[in-house]
Amino acid sequence: MGGGGSSVLMRLGILMSGPDQVSVDSIALFVTLLCICIVIGHLLEENRWINESITALFIGLGTGIVLLVATKGGSSRILAFNEDFFFIYLLPPIIFNAGFQVKKKQFFRNFMSIMSFGAVGTMISFCIVSFGAKLLFETLDMGYLELRDYLGSFILFTTCSSGLCYFIVPIGAIFSATDSVCTLQVLNQDDTPLLYSLVFGEGVVNDATSVVLFNAIQKFDLSDISSRIALKFVGNFFSLFLASTLLGVVVGLLSAYIIKKLHIGRHSPDREVALMILMAYLSYIIAELCDLSGILTVFFCGIVMSHYAFYNVTESSRVTTKHAFATLSFIAETFIFLYVGMDALDLEKWELVSNSLGKSVGASAALLGLVMVGRAAFIFPLSFLTNFTKSKSDKLNAKQQVTIWWAGLMRGAVSMALAYNQFANSGHTKQPGNAAMITCTITVVLFSTVVFGLFTKHIVRLLLPPSTHLNTMVSSEPSSPNSTLILSLLANEEDSTMTLPLLGDVEDLEDGSPGSTNVRRPPSLCMLLSTPTNTVHHYWRIFDDAFMRRVFGGRGFAVYVPDSPEEGSIH
Amino acid sequence: MGGGGSSVLMRLGILMSGPDQVSVDSIALFVTLLCICIVIGHLLEENRWINESITALFIGLGTGIVLLVATKGGSSRILAFNEDFFFIYLLPPIIFNAGFQVKKKQFFRNFMSIMSFGAVGTMISFCIVSFGAKLLFETLDMGYLELRDYLGSFILFTTCSSGLCYFIVPIGAIFSATDSVCTLQVLNQDDTPLLYSLVFGEGVVNDATSVVLFNAIQKFDLSDISSRIALKFVGNFFSLFLASTLLGVVVGLLSAYIIKKLHIGRHSPDREVALMILMAYLSYIIAELCDLSGILTVFFCGIVMSHYAFYNVTESSRVTTKHAFATLSFIAETFIFLYVGMDALDLEKWELVSNSLGKSVGASAALLGLVMVGRAAFIFPLSFLTNFTKSKSDKLNAKQQVTIWWAGLMRGAVSMALAYNQFANSGHTKQPGNAAMITCTITVVLFSTVVFGLFTKHIVRLLLPPSTHLNTMVSSEPSSPNSTLILSLLANEEDSTMTLPLLGDVEDLEDGSPGSTNVRRPPSLCMLLSTPTNTVHHYWRIFDDAFMRRVFGGRGFAVYVPDSPEEGSIH
Repeated sequence: MGGGGSSVLMRLGILMSGPDQVSVDSIALFVTLLCICIVIGHLLEENRWINESITALFIGLGTGIVLLVATKGGSSRILAFNEDFFFIYLLPPIIFNAGFQVKKKQFFRNFMSIMSFGAVGTMISFCIVSFGAKLLFETLDMGYLELRDYLGSFILFTTCSSGLCYFIVPIGAIFSATDSVCTLQVLNQDDTPLLYSLVFGEGVVNDATSVVLFNAIQKFDLSDISSRIALKFVGNFFSLFLASTLLGVVVGLLSAYIIKKLHIGRHSPDREVALMILMAYLSYIIAELCDLSGILTVFFCGIVMSHYAFYNVTESSRVTTKHAFATLSFIAETFIFLYVGMDALDLEKWELVSNSLGKSVGASAALLGLVMVGRAAFIFPLSFLTNFTKSKSDKLNAKQQVTIWWAGLMRGAVSMALAYNQFANSGHTKQPGNAAMITCTITVVLFSTVVFGLFTKHIVRLLLPPSTHLNTMVSSEPSSPNSTLILSLLANEEDSTMTLPLLGDVEDLEDGSPGSTNVRRPPSLCMLLSTPTNTVHHYWRIFDDAFMRRVFGGRGFAVYVPDSPEEGSIH
Repeated sequence: MGGGGSSVLMRLGILMSGPDQVSVDSIALFVTLLCICIVIGHLLEENRWINESITALFIGLGTGIVLLVATKGGSSRILAFNEDFFFIYLLPPIIFNAGFQVKKKQFFRNFMSIMSFGAVGTMISFCIVSFGAKLLFETLDMGYLELRDYLGSFILFTTCSSGLCYFIVPIGAIFSATDSVCTLQVLNQDDTPLLYSLVFGEGVVNDATSVVLFNAIQKFDLSDISSRIALKFVGNFFSLFLASTLLGVVVGLLSAYIIKKLHIGRHSPDREVALMILMAYLSYIIAELCDLSGILTVFFCGIVMSHYAFYNVTESSRVTTKHAFATLSFIAETFIFLYVGMDALDLEKWELVSNSLGKSVGASAALLGLVMVGRAAFIFPLSFLTNFTKSKSDKLNAKQQVTIWWAGLMRGAVSMALAYNQFANSGHTKQPGNAAMITCTITVVLFSTVVFGLFTKHIVRLLLPPSTHLNTMVSSEPSSPNSTLILSLLANEEDSTMTLPLLGDVEDLEDGSPGSTNVRRPPSLCMLLSTPTNTVHHYWRIFDDAFMRRVFGGRGFAVYVPDSPEEGSIH
């Protein structure tokens, strides 16, 4: 009976599934909404104010209202926000694609700034938001102190000496989360590559910091901070950072090696694509299993794959991976904003805080202020400090600093997921204190995404006019893939927001590909002293050409020659 | 805190999730196994005996054994076989891709044979297996008759007058299911296009039949079959078939129209790809919601998309969709076989039937025999009958009939899913009768997939030597896309199992694309009488060119010209 009775099966599935389980109806509604988002997002593409995330948020909110009216106030959502679903399925493709498509030169050139913003900056912001929230709640006395009783059973913060820790520490965490997903949506890598790599890179490093912070809160007694513990903390951070990065690099190299050695694409290019997708996902899952930062791992896995594996696959697989990863990421992003929009109207939580609505609004506003102050407190001082290590053209001026500050203010799905994890049990909460925390988070997320998001394009345009930032910040990264076919294919398409994963810079053209006009310059002593990053980059290139690409393939070293399956590498 | 504490969240997820919920560990294991399957499948590609599904089955079985040893007989599986998961997530991409990549000319040329095999044939097979099983169980008296008591609470077969219906009717259904997934894996569309389209098409129509059968069992009192009820039944089948097909066609046309009219790919090709994926999935889900056959719907949606929407998208999106859909389908197929392999060793069920093992083996062997007889009972008579409607070169000879009979004998994941739905509650069962039914199904599935699968390549080679079937059956379908770029890209790659979705035949080259050597021949009266299908096809082409392609785009009518975003259609 064929796919026999599948329809009947599904009916049964609907009947038997609980209220929080995925039903076919809700899948149908969600898929329809996603299609609508894509079409409307396309129509509004040229609009200066609206971006895709805001469109999706509004469509989610609109659907929530319709559902509320249809169910007469019963429920605004068809799916409860599920933080497992978010972290296991939606986040990995987004971050992997970001690593796969990121302009590697920009990223590594600003590596020090990214590290300091992501690690030190997050700590500063965390402390400011936490202590600010502590003062705020003590002043407002929002009736949350009665919740001390519940602390005994709470597993995460058992070492926390004060009952307030239950709220304060997570709030610091929730509101220090730079939302990488929002950043990807609002900033354009081609228009503002420096900002993009700084703010997005910060978000990625931010995740590693957060994992260390969480572990630290569990392991260390923070009320008794000694220099030994602080050192241990720093050591912890670096080992976690290194381990996560290493895991991503190893999985990326392994995939490149397997694809190159075994000619996986010889019989079917689909195997190559499948292997790349699966191994990237595997890197994320393994990192999570090992208590590492999955985001950091999958990000570096994406970078390594685009540097090696991407060049080992057949030509059609290159086009496919480039667009398929972007498409998956795009769907996941849209899904998240829809999800957040629909969840925001859940009456259950709002009813619980309705008798303290004024306080709730006040607390949200105060938290938003804290977020802004917390971010300002590290962007400006750290920019000032990192400017000392940079060449004059790379220094961050005041306008750029303001833009970076602004672009990282949005809080999004990551904050929501953390809030739900902390204050709700599978999307539901019965306690007014918890409900207030969640509604505060929703308010901050909606406000920051919509209002800050609306103005970001304008602020970027105002502070960094195209003539300035395009000329000074876009390094001349020519796309010079080996195959003129790919070149023409990629040049023909109109997609201006995507570029072929670019691996190097003008120095990278020694493989004699067409369009090579620059000659490799040896680094002078002057260059070495003034721009240490460039020098490191130069020696990395030598090592890369001499060893890495010979083993793992890469541009110029593993061109797949379809007619001779036995030997795929030229050079 | 970035993707903050995602690791911590996941730990919590693992701790809190029940035994049947998806945990991060099991995802990691599954993804690793999928990667291993891909690599081993690649290495064994040239092996004459093993195919990818058998590899995945064996890897699944091996993992099951390792898990059994590791847990000391505790459990062989990390995920229970979940039929909802199978029907909602795994099956749609496989069937959609089959529709997207199917050789349409072969499919429509053999439409009558496919319909008769799928509809009439399934009924015949269903009756034979059901009545055979009834006799068998009465003879063996396997102790299942005590289960009559449970029938009162059973919702599906309440109208069934005899207690045996509980087993007999579902068994007929389970073992009449031609597994499209197995067929796709074992037969090669390029080597044996006729067989492929017949056996696969039969599987798709089979699904529509099964939905009607299930509904009929619920609605009609089958113990009192009158001519009126039989007519109603036939009417039901055709309305369901038409409605499902129509839904797929409408969604496919809608996607083509939206992409063409709005130039969705203008700003980003990823939107086009996302829209195609989402709308295809939507068609399946809507069909299931409306109690139609989702498989039939998504199959026709794939056909229509490859005929219209495929030509409206940018060039890179064409390459991407072609390979991304195939990759998704490939991953889903491999996943299914792994899943079945791991589930086969679940001790719980085997222990329940351990004291009647001999009977169980006997029943499995008898069921396998019934499957073979049931299939023979419709393939040969129906082939004989449909041969009358065909031109001499299209007639099925005896060897081809035997091959079709053999290729459809495999039972796979669909049978497993139906058995679990009928006899188990979320993967568990406590009753010996139910357990015996499930173990019988597993035995038949494993045996037929492995043994029949092993020999299929050889039988095809033996009965239809390449020189014969390649010359007589592969119609000269030149791939003549408008763009020479795509042409060279597709010609360059080594993928011999995939072809650009081909829309027409030699008559289809009136758009003057390079390589057009044949001139369109007007249909003569003789042709019309001898080959009605070809004549219908001719008039369809005229209508297609005159109206359909002008509205919905398609080859030659909606070439996307990247440099002039305002008007994308030439001709």
